Order: sequence, then C-alpha cells, then structure tokens
Amino acid sequence: MIGEIIAIGDELTSGRIANTTSGFAARHLFAAGHEIYAMHTIGDTPALIGEALKRAIRRVDFVVVTGGLGSTTDDLTNEAVAEALERPPTLYPDILEKIRQHLGGTQPAGNLEKMAWLPEGAEILNHKAKMAGYMLVHESVPIFFLPGVPSQMKELLVEQVLPRLSGWSTDNRNYIQQRIYRTFGLPETIINGRLIELEKQENVHIGYYPVDCEVHVSLTVLEKDDLSAEKKFIKADQSLTQALGDAIYGTGHKTLASVVGDLLRKNKKQLSVAESCTGGLIGEKLTAVVGSSAWFAGGVIAYSNHLKEILLDVDQDLLKNYGAVSEQVARAMAARLTDRIQTDMTVSVTGIAGPGGGSKEKPVGTVYIGLFHNNKVKASLHHFEGNRARVREMTANTALDTIRRALLADDAPA
Amino acid sequence: MIGEIIAIGDELTSGRIANTTSGFAARHLFAAGHEIYAMHTIGDTPALIGEALKRAIRRVDFVVVTGGLGSTTDDLTNEAVAEALERPPTLYPDILEKIRQHLGGTQPAGNLEKMAWLPEGAEILNHKAKMAGYMLVHESVPIFFLPGVPSQMKELLVEQVLPRLSGWSTDNRNYIQQRIYRTFGLPETIINGRLIELEKQENVHIGYYPVDCEVHVSLTVLEKDDLSAEKKFIKADQSLTQALGDAIYGTGHKTLASVVGDLLRKNKKQLSVAESCTGGLIGEKLTAVVGSSAWFAGGVIAYSNHLKEILLDVDQDLLKNYGAVSEQVARAMAARLTDRIQTDMTVSVTGIAGPGGGSKEKPVGTVYIGLFHNNKVKASLHHFEGNRARVREMTANTALDTIRRALLADDAPA
Repeated sequence: MIGEIIAIGDELTSGRIANTTSGFAARHLFAAGHEIYAMHTIGDTPALIGEALKRAIRRVDFVVVTGGLGSTTDDLTNEAVAEALERPPTLYPDILEKIRQHLGGTQPAGNLEKMAWLPEGAEILNHKAKMAGYMLVHESVPIFFLPGVPSQMKELLVEQVLPRLSGWSTDNRNYIQQRIYRTFGLPETIINGRLIELEKQENVHIGYYPVDCEVHVSLTVLEKDDLSAEKKFIKADQSLTQALGDAIYGTGHKTLASVVGDLLRKNKKQLSVAESCTGGLIGEKLTAVVGSSAWFAGGVIAYSNHLKEILLDVDQDLLKNYGAVSEQVARAMAARLTDRIQTDMTVSVTGIAGPGGGSKEKPVGTVYIGLFHNNKVKASLHHFEGNRARVREMTANTALDTIRRALLADDAPA
Repeated sequence: MIGEIIAIGDELTSGRIANTTSGFAARHLFAAGHEIYAMHTIGDTPALIGEALKRAIRRVDFVVVTGGLGSTTDDLTNEAVAEALERPPTLYPDILEKIRQHLGGTQPAGNLEKMAWLPEGAEILNHKAKMAGYMLVHESVPIFFLPGVPSQMKELLVEQVLPRLSGWSTDNRNYIQQRIYRTFGLPETIINGRLIELEKQENVHIGYYPVDCEVHVSLTVLEKDDLSAEKKFIKADQSLTQALGDAIYGTGHKTLASVVGDLLRKNKKQLSVAESCTGGLIGEKLTAVVGSSAWFAGGVIAYSNHLKEILLDVDQDLLKNYGAVSEQVARAMAARLTDRIQTDMTVSVTGIAGPGGGSKEKPVGTVYIGLFHNNKVKASLHHFEGNRARVREMTANTALDTIRRALLADDAPA
C-alpha cells in the first residue's frame, strides 16, 4: 500500500525538536512492504492540518498522522480533523472515565477532558494503554492518528498500525517474512559488503539501521504466496547468519543486556560490575531487563580514585604507579570486587570518556575492560572514537559483549 | 518571511536515512525570524518534486529544497525543476571546467557532467566551493537548491541562504525573543493552566513539550522591532517564572543532572549514590555531565539484599523486619554509605520498578528516596505510575530533584 506521513507540531517546524517519529514510521512501513509517497511536517494550524489531510486522502491508500493529540491548548489535531472531514467532536465516555480514574476518581477532568472528544467514527487503537491514538476510516482510506511522544508513537505504530494495515487488503497481499538481526562490533560497511550477494536475490530486501553503537539488519522476503516466502526466507536467513556469525547477538527485540541475562540465567551465574568512566551505565542497562535480579547482584560506581580504594580495595600503589586508567587497575577492580562479594563474574571498566583528561599516552577514548570469570581475571585495551556520550556507550556495550562472548565460549564444545 | 522546506530522496522516504537537514534549516530560519509553513519529504520522483515546488511557490515567500543535485541516475531535482518551472537545462561552462579540473583535466566529465546543467536562470550560491547549490527566483519567490549531504547543506544554508534572505525584504521582518524553560514535578495540564492568561497576550506564544518525565515550555515573543520584542519578552518571562516557580530547574540546554552539578560545585560539596531499583541510572545521568568528577564520587549499585549488607552495611535485621523497600532501609543506605566514604551528600533509592515484585501493601511503583545532607538523614515515600522504564526514570529524576531542592534550601535566606 502507498501512504503518507504527516507530523504535526510547532516544535517541529521551528526546528526546536528533531522529528524522529516520521523517519521511524517510514522505516517500519517500508520494511513491511509499503511505500511512502510523501512525508509532511506542519505546525499546529488547523487549516493546514485539514488541507494536508484532505490532499493525502485523495492520493494514497493510508495516512499516518502524529502529534497534536494532547490536552494542552496548542494540541489541535482533533479539532482540525473534525472540521476538515466534517466529523463532529464526539464524547467517548470510556476515555473520560479512564481520565477521571487516573485523576483519583473525584475531580472533574478539567483540561484533560478535551482528550475524550474525538472526531465521529474514531476507533481507539489500544483500549488498555493510557495513551491517545485512534483510527478513522474516511472514504475507505484508513487514517491513523498517533501521539507525538516518540515512545508512545513507536509502540502504537508497531503494535497496532502495522498489523491493521497488513490485514487491510488481502487481494494484492504480498506474503512477507521478516526478521531483525541485531549486531555489535562490525561496521555497517563491512556488514553491507558481506551481504551484497544476498541483496541481489529477487524479492529479498535487506535494510541497514545503525542504532546507537549497534547495526541492526532487517531481512525481508516478499512473495506472492506463503510457502514461497517461507522457503526463500529460510535460505536467506541461513546465508545472513553465516555471513555475520557471532556479530549477531540476537534477533527481534533482544538487547545486548537481555542476551547477557539469558546466558547468565542458563549458566546459573551471578554478575556484578565495577564501573568508573561509565558511571552506572552498565548497571542501568542490565537492570532495565525485566527479572534481572535473578542474575545481577549490583556493584560499585568507583568514579573517584578514593572510591576505587575504599569500596573496591584497589591498592593505592597500583593507582599511583600505573594510573587509574590501566590494565593493572582494571584487573584489580574486577578481582577485588569479586573477593568481596563473591559473584561468579565481575566486569570492570576504567577509561577516559573526555572531553578532558586525555594525554599523549592515553588519549580520550582509551578504555580498559576487565573481566573476572572462571576464577581468572583478564583485561583488554580499547580505543573508542567520538564524544563523551559515544565513548561511554561504546564502553558499556563492549563490556556487555565481552561478558556475552565469555559465556558463549563456556558453552562451545571443547 | 514565510517559507517551506522540501527534502528530496528515496533514502528519506524509506526511512533508511534520518532527515536531519530539514530540522537544521527550520531551526536556523526560525532563529533568523522566519516562519516555516510546512516541511515536506518526497522521493526522487520528478512529478512529485515539480508538484511540491509549484504548490510552495504559490503560498510562501521562499523555498529551500535539499537533495537530488548529485551525479547519479537517481538525482533528479534539476530535471524536475527544468520541467515544472519551464526553465530548460542550460550548460554552465565554468562548472564543467571545474569538474574537469577536479578529475585531472584530461578525461571527459562523464556522469559528473550532469551537474553542470542547471535550470535556466540558476545562480550559483558559492563559486569557490566544490559543491552543488544554486538560487532560482521564480515569480519573485527565491528558491534555494542545496545538496542533501548534511555538512554541505548546513554550510550553504548558514553562509549563503540566511544572508541572502535577510537582505531580501526588510519591511516585514519579525524580531524574535525565545527561551526554553525546563520543568520537573508539575503535570503538563497544571502548567498549561497556570500560563493560560499569558498565552492570551498578543504576539506571545507558549509551547508545551513533554520530554521523558519532564515538561519543557517555550516562550516566544514576535514583534515588528527589536525593542518591543525585548520589552515584551522581559515581562512575559517574569510572569512565566513566577507562575511556575521552582518547578523550573533550568533554561536552554541544562539538564537536571547538570543543574545539580552546578549547585554542588558552587557549594563545594561531593555527592555519592546508593542505588537499588535504578541500578546505576542516577550515576549514569550525573556522569553524563562533563566535569562531573569535580563533584561526584560514585557509589554503590546495591541491587541484591546481599550487596546492601556487604557494600552498604545495612543491618540484616532492618532488611528482615521492614523489607528492602522501606523508609528504614532507604535511610540506612544513605547513612551507612556516607559513614564509609565520607561524602557531603548521599542519595539513596529503593523501590519496586515492576512488572513483578509488587504486593498489596507495596504495589509496583512504590519507591523510597533517602538523602543524607547537613549531617541529617531523611527519606520520602513516592508512588510512580507506568511501566518499569517509566518508574525508574521518575525515580532517578525525583532523586536528582530532591538533591536540587535540598541545595537550593541551603542557599535560601533564613
């Protein structure tokens, strides 16, 4: 199907907020086999919203609209739609009820009440979620109205819009098989090079998406029937996983941290961390995983040298002789914390995230990662490029990947 | 002046590349006093390019077009413009000469020769630079064609487009004053309610932007002359800061963590953290601030009860009698860590982030935040709504805000 995306908000046309939702929608719609005819960004101006909507309905099969569904006075999408498509605002009592419950059940909803008035014919996308978002079918064209808040928009797009669109027209349906492979450690160009032959196959489409420090690769197979799609997909999946090997850490929604958690759980091991330059980022990623208390104990944020001594028992002499950013200190951080708290594995990081603190011998981006595992302690030296945020993100991801590879090596046949 | 921005490229409509140039252009044009009527992203399709261009010329004062000026077969902007505006492709010999020189002077220009053919009337933006980019005045509307490569586009926009536009018409110019206020702790609807009167003032515009757990508020004043804009802005700024009070933690690009850092630095205090349910998130936010080692020591991620005992010296009896998520344990975490590492302030958090672990007495979202400060330890109880990520984010931000308010209270006159 061919669609248009319309993003609404003065914060976008003034350039104050970068529009990340339209690109996200385009990427996912494209991967699902749809084509985007045009993307528009307009301000919170009802006349413009109505005009863009009416023009889109005339020329495409579906429309995705984001933003302007909130409760403040500058949220005008519902009013604009009601006016432009001649669908008078209608009270949705169950939404009003939910808003009142949210407020404690006693007060009137005040400004928030606005969110319970939707254009006639609106169908709520997710009744269970506390977020705006509805579908309106106008002149046989499905129009999806999603919140401008990226996290909510993304959730509704993936969980509601894509499935509804795929069921919309079955005549011309292409049978799609798709998988996302998440990789860490290989540059995008290398991945691209390894998949160039696979890319040339008919009805096979490969997408490359750099996400933070990772590259996610999508494999999409489109065929006229289910069986052909499945057969072709199985072969393409084999080629792809062979080409990228263990740079693929997982598929779908897995994260490096959740994969590390799965391996720790399987191997009945407890992990701890001793973080310097990442300041808690590794612990944060691990504990973002639901159920992480089963395999993650915690650890120490030893940002100052003083804390490396007091909380991690790192010898003052080591710090003096080799410096805090050294192989010796990385090893000591992992080993001493393990001594103290007796977890099975401990990862440690110490490095220079910048912008200050670099020297000729140890420039910004110099990082040591230590690992205590199977009663041995090792450390590796890394040089990461980029700004402070990038160096910290690369450090945390490399630390997680180091744990992942150590656990995989345990599992490998001797 | 009022303008439109048109970005061209299949790589944008497929979501493969994020469109960063339109937002950059909007931001700089807005800051220069212009208004963006709409932004469009379309594929490399001549008919669409022509249609978008013709519609824009009819309704705005200037147009910025990016992308599709290169030498490959999918770069079709020049062809589309020549066709749509009836301006036949014309050879620009000096460009051809430069391309030939670039290639070493001997070979024919091949594919690159395409770049020397521009729509009739095109005026090269920068003769010295080795990059495409021209201006075309059509029906008195200046249209700027810029390369899609972000670095080139940005350079030409700032050095060529903005100065040319500012000289275009000085009659109708708007003078702008703008500020962003970052708030934490007040819901968007309450903020909206407090600013509803200010919003009604002529030439004053207020925007509301929920960002993670915060609400950012923009105040924009547009006037015909510099002095009126400044006068009106000063008054509006006073009303706004009075209405929102200390819910405003900072302006511009400040973060809660950077404001906490500024206050700690000013008060010459060192901070440490004892994190349970946030697992390192508070430390991560603090150490994301450049120069945080001056006021942040580090701390302990005490995710398991075992670590609360070993690393934080929390009494086993406290944990047994009151549970890990309790006022008593939150206080002990902050007090015992301070005893051990002797920082001036210690913040502690312990709570139930979910989705599991809740009970009738302590449902998911129950969080205690402890604070050791001025030789006293306090703890506060919170109930946060939402999923695991939201509860953790709210917990970390509330902990930072607790530190901020404690430091502000020290500064306040007795």
